[in-house]
Amino acid sequence: MPLVNISILKGKSPEYKKAIANGINSAVIETMGFPDDDRYQIINEVEPECLEYQQRDSDRVMMFLIMRTGHSNNEKKAFYSKVVENLSADPGVSPENILISIVENHDIDWSFRRGVAQFVV
Amino acid sequence: MPLVNISILKGKSPEYKKAIANGINSAVIETMGFPDDDRYQIINEVEPECLEYQQRDSDRVMMFLIMRTGHSNNEKKAFYSKVVENLSADPGVSPENILISIVENHDIDWSFRRGVAQFVV
Amino acid sequence: MPLVNISILKGKSPEYKKAIANGINSAVIETMGFPDDDRYQIINEVEPECLEYQQRDSDRVMMFLIMRTGHSNNEKKAFYSKVVENLSADPGVSPENILISIVENHDIDWSFRRGVAQFVV
Repeated sequence: MPLVNISILKGKSPEYKKAIANGINSAVIETMGFPDDDRYQIINEVEPECLEYQQRDSDRVMMFLIMRTGHSNNEKKAFYSKVVENLSADPGVSPENILISIVENHDIDWSFRRGVAQFVV
Repeated sequence: MPLVNISILKGKSPEYKKAIANGINSAVIETMGFPDDDRYQIINEVEPECLEYQQRDSDRVMMFLIMRTGHSNNEKKAFYSKVVENLSADPGVSPENILISIVENHDIDWSFRRGVAQFVV
Repeated sequence: MPLVNISILKGKSPEYKKAIANGINSAVIETMGFPDDDRYQIINEVEPECLEYQQRDSDRVMMFLIMRTGHSNNEKKAFYSKVVENLSADPGVSPENILISIVENHDIDWSFRRGVAQFVV
């Protein structure tokens, strides 16, 4: 389910972008129990001056996830840890330079296709 | 009111973008009782590899709305249905390829102009 | 803390973008009691037809902040007012053309670096 909004620096290779998307997606599935095909991700590519992350000027990633309420603190902690593990391994973003935030909503707040609220049918 | 964040594929015509924006806006107004001029929309244009929507590779749209809590399930369902009806008619996005999510906040969480919290005055 | 998502028109100078980012950041710190280095901002640059703000066609800015619940109405009001004061002074955006919305989450919903939930340790 989660709709994952990811912001990265402009000018990265397709391989870099794929590694970011894959690393986050596999963390979502592994740590929070989502189905294997539950992949909904948007990557925004912005200029360096448009990605203000304290004083960092090296490679960096900021993301926020929209998902239903109900995941435990432990699941979220495992997710944060796994995202950072994955992205530092590939494409090699420093663990210091990955910000993650979560925003929650409810069953009725999702339509994945065909204009139907799939969780409230 | 809603602030509508819409992500589409890069390279679309102005007419396509206008149809997306208009189709969502008229669904908002028709199904959730917002005023006629209540239009606040951001369209993000991203590369195909930056719009991961399960395995879809044809045209696709993902959006999330920020709006105040208080809309009923029936209003939200009508909204989802109308968005898909509108966007499949014009510009012709498949109903299978439209994702919608809603995030809610409160009266105090809005300033539409002049730095005033218009709902809490 | 807040993760600030800012949408502006494409084609602005680096100075304009810096003024926007700085003006919002100093308002965050001054009015809501965040630490001095608490700067997390994403600027999205979009075409004019992708920034629909009622009927406005002059320069305009729309933003939403993700932050923890707990800030008072008065703090939020002061924040809105200060953002508009700052951005109208520099880079000179009309107070009529600045939209702000806030979305709230909780302690567990943040990891600022290293995959750790810094507020829940």
